[in-house]
Amino acid sequence: MPDATPDLEAIKRHFAQDHFAATSGIEILELQQGFARTALKVEERHLNSVGIAQGGAIFTLADLAFAMACNSSGQVAVAINTTLSFLRPTPGGSLVAEATEVSRSRRISTCTVRVLDESERLVALFQGTAYIKDEPFPPVSD
Amino acid sequence: MPDATPDLEAIKRHFAQDHFAATSGIEILELQQGFARTALKVEERHLNSVGIAQGGAIFTLADLAFAMACNSSGQVAVAINTTLSFLRPTPGGSLVAEATEVSRSRRISTCTVRVLDESERLVALFQGTAYIKDEPFPPVSD
Amino acid sequence: MPDATPDLEAIKRHFAQDHFAATSGIEILELQQGFARTALKVEERHLNSVGIAQGGAIFTLADLAFAMACNSSGQVAVAINTTLSFLRPTPGGSLVAEATEVSRSRRISTCTVRVLDESERLVALFQGTAYIKDEPFPPVSD
Amino acid sequence: MPDATPDLEAIKRHFAQDHFAATSGIEILELQQGFARTALKVEERHLNSVGIAQGGAIFTLADLAFAMACNSSGQVAVAINTTLSFLRPTPGGSLVAEATEVSRSRRISTCTVRVLDESERLVALFQGTAYIKDEPFPPVSD
Repeated sequence: MPDATPDLEAIKRHFAQDHFAATSGIEILELQQGFARTALKVEERHLNSVGIAQGGAIFTLADLAFAMACNSSGQVAVAINTTLSFLRPTPGGSLVAEATEVSRSRRISTCTVRVLDESERLVALFQGTAYIKDEPFPPVSD
Repeated sequence: MPDATPDLEAIKRHFAQDHFAATSGIEILELQQGFARTALKVEERHLNSVGIAQGGAIFTLADLAFAMACNSSGQVAVAINTTLSFLRPTPGGSLVAEATEVSRSRRISTCTVRVLDESERLVALFQGTAYIKDEPFPPVSD
Repeated sequence: MPDATPDLEAIKRHFAQDHFAATSGIEILELQQGFARTALKVEERHLNSVGIAQGGAIFTLADLAFAMACNSSGQVAVAINTTLSFLRPTPGGSLVAEATEVSRSRRISTCTVRVLDESERLVALFQGTAYIKDEPFPPVSD
Repeated sequence: MPDATPDLEAIKRHFAQDHFAATSGIEILELQQGFARTALKVEERHLNSVGIAQGGAIFTLADLAFAMACNSSGQVAVAINTTLSFLRPTPGGSLVAEATEVSRSRRISTCTVRVLDESERLVALFQGTAYIKDEPFPPVSD
């Protein structure tokens, strides 16, 4: 049911249509089967009330990488739940999220996402779990 | 060190300065000590690539309610980690997040946030944990 | 596929066969559809190296209540992941875990579990997510 | 306040006094600063009602490794919260948990724990967060 060879370029094009990620300034850097990278240049609009990158901006960055990684096998995967740990405040600069699918059974995909700053320091740690459906990805309607 | 009577209006004014929440369209509805409510009218810009409210938009809504609730006693509280479960997809309409501080020790605040749609159905469940500092909130620099 | 009327007594008998819960001293108090209660009398064998109830003992208490609640509709539910927050140390006495299924879709059950001490204080907060299969529960092999 | 050189042997002796871990059959394999390994031989008493290692047994194994890793710098660290994902059922054999402290600030330690079976397959993924106190570890009362 999943493509033997997922169309990674079509998957990237699909995720480029994510309105909230795009308007939040999240950029897609890379997609391989089971791995994805996204980036965010932290601007004033991404800050919270005390001048550091807002949790929601970091979540959106990590969540897009997670969504891409768990859908990268050519089968629809829907997020069930996520965790996010804030390890180091980020006042500015660029962030990169690296999502790795650490486990995949017939129905469940589990990914960990590391969020790194420009000095390659770990600023946040995310985990996402998705439910895998018997439907091709990207959807045929694309 | 915490105000015996936190200045809830000053705390609300402080959180109105959250750039990412404000530009994402999150609205502050209510603040009491240990309780906060925020709202989001889901527009096209909040959708993901398959036409439902993006996880990051829901996170940002819930996270602002959490931040307000754990800071509502007049002492700085910094987010340590969060969990978010997606229970029901939301294609549009308005969402409300209700944060309740379920536990507060000298150093740790734990809040649960329920995200409800217009029919009062639970669409997401969030939990946030924060570290409490010996500093007044809002900061005196405000 | 699920029983219209799950056999709650058969489900309780099934969970009474949980070796680790039973040898850990966990007791089944109550089961309704979507709700379960378990209990633990904290003895020396449940303590950690600093004399309070060990995290694993509290987890086992909460996890059994979660397993019962998410299987209480007569369909097999398999744990995907869990979270556990430790809110108050417990040096002794009795603990009760109350699991409530807060959301159930065709494939995913989400339960929250409150762990209370004898004074009805919240000592731990647990959340569990399970994958629902098209198989009757308890298994016909019972 | 923390020992410049934590006494790893004293820390291991301290954790050997964890009643629940010891009576559950958890064995301490290794401790370095920021890293710990524990083991469990899965016996009938560790199984749940459907014949696989119970979640509480896996939690206890991972939690002890976490507790050792976050206390391995010679300062008391108290668990705040944990997550546990079940990736693969384990009907028997031996399990090893490897805890790594992935982040440590002045007050917060975050550890990830990988639980592996005899074939080095990842069967569970745990994350633990602890609050660091200004007290030496092991406690002077030891």
